[in-house]
Amino acid sequence: MNGRSKQLRTDGKRQEILAAASGAFRKLGVRRAGMREIAEALGLSAGNLYYYFRNKDELIYYCQDRTLDALIEVAREAGRQYGTRGQLGHLIEGHLRVLLGEQDSGLLHLEFDDLPPELLKKVVQKRDRYEKLVRALIADAQKRGELRPGSAKLDAFVLLGALNWTARWFRPGGEWTVEMVAKHHRERLLDGLMERR
Amino acid sequence: MNGRSKQLRTDGKRQEILAAASGAFRKLGVRRAGMREIAEALGLSAGNLYYYFRNKDELIYYCQDRTLDALIEVAREAGRQYGTRGQLGHLIEGHLRVLLGEQDSGLLHLEFDDLPPELLKKVVQKRDRYEKLVRALIADAQKRGELRPGSAKLDAFVLLGALNWTARWFRPGGEWTVEMVAKHHRERLLDGLMERR
Repeated sequence: MNGRSKQLRTDGKRQEILAAASGAFRKLGVRRAGMREIAEALGLSAGNLYYYFRNKDELIYYCQDRTLDALIEVAREAGRQYGTRGQLGHLIEGHLRVLLGEQDSGLLHLEFDDLPPELLKKVVQKRDRYEKLVRALIADAQKRGELRPGSAKLDAFVLLGALNWTARWFRPGGEWTVEMVAKHHRERLLDGLMERR
Repeated sequence: MNGRSKQLRTDGKRQEILAAASGAFRKLGVRRAGMREIAEALGLSAGNLYYYFRNKDELIYYCQDRTLDALIEVAREAGRQYGTRGQLGHLIEGHLRVLLGEQDSGLLHLEFDDLPPELLKKVVQKRDRYEKLVRALIADAQKRGELRPGSAKLDAFVLLGALNWTARWFRPGGEWTVEMVAKHHRERLLDGLMERR
């Protein structure tokens, strides 16, 4: 097996581990679930888990980094959609699918204060890149007169706040599907809570 | 000094401690700032701080409990305003003033997973009481046909998500005042990001 295919195999296994680790984080809390509890939830020996992630920080960092890559991809795709409704709609729905979908990575997307400084710095930089893409979409739509005039930064905070908050309350298999939440949030964020007269 | 006035004096001092502790939390992170760092930020001896709060959990709990009392008061006042715009506008602006205003209690409002179970339970119960008041305001306005029809619970999540998120990015003395953020968020949440045609 050459280096490349070994890397792919490791990435695949890492993805699998993350998907399962989310369950332990959701059940015990991100801070309380240690490598031992994560290994148990996976039916792996702790030693086996350590082969893929040297420690919990590395696991959290890897997850957040993948999530941000996926979000940046969503923002780029959004920019290629037609019109403001198409672009922001794609962004809203894509952001929620990344956070609440199969990988269930949303909880960790909200947690990063505890990472060691060198990893935290990388996460913050990538998060800034994503937020800049979001702001640029908003600012362009404001220039076209399709969004209300004002600070694109404040608008992005409203948008990302409501979207990221879903990770706090959404439960897979619960009252709503990801698509239901996506449709609802898309409408409310673009057109407001008030009924139009 | 009788028991009642001693209690009042202790409450006043506790408020003062919380206002100053927020600075330490903001600077070092809620998790990294311990009782020693909080005492230092206050120019108090650690022993003096322990007179007012037995430990950091008690300090965090006291702060969250006060914040929720203030939010519940805001929701009650909101219910006495005129019309849906008046009611939800009052709620949005009041929520932000509580979180971002003088007490600077917003950061702690987002943190509660680490409290010991018996304190966590009390916070969660009071938080539920607040969220129920918010949902009731929304459901009533939907019945009057002034808000879009749909799940009042999902609407409340959009609202509270955007509002609570401000505690993550707002910096006192920064680019915007609390009143500017309140006015912006009020408009965007009630009427949406899109310009009306």
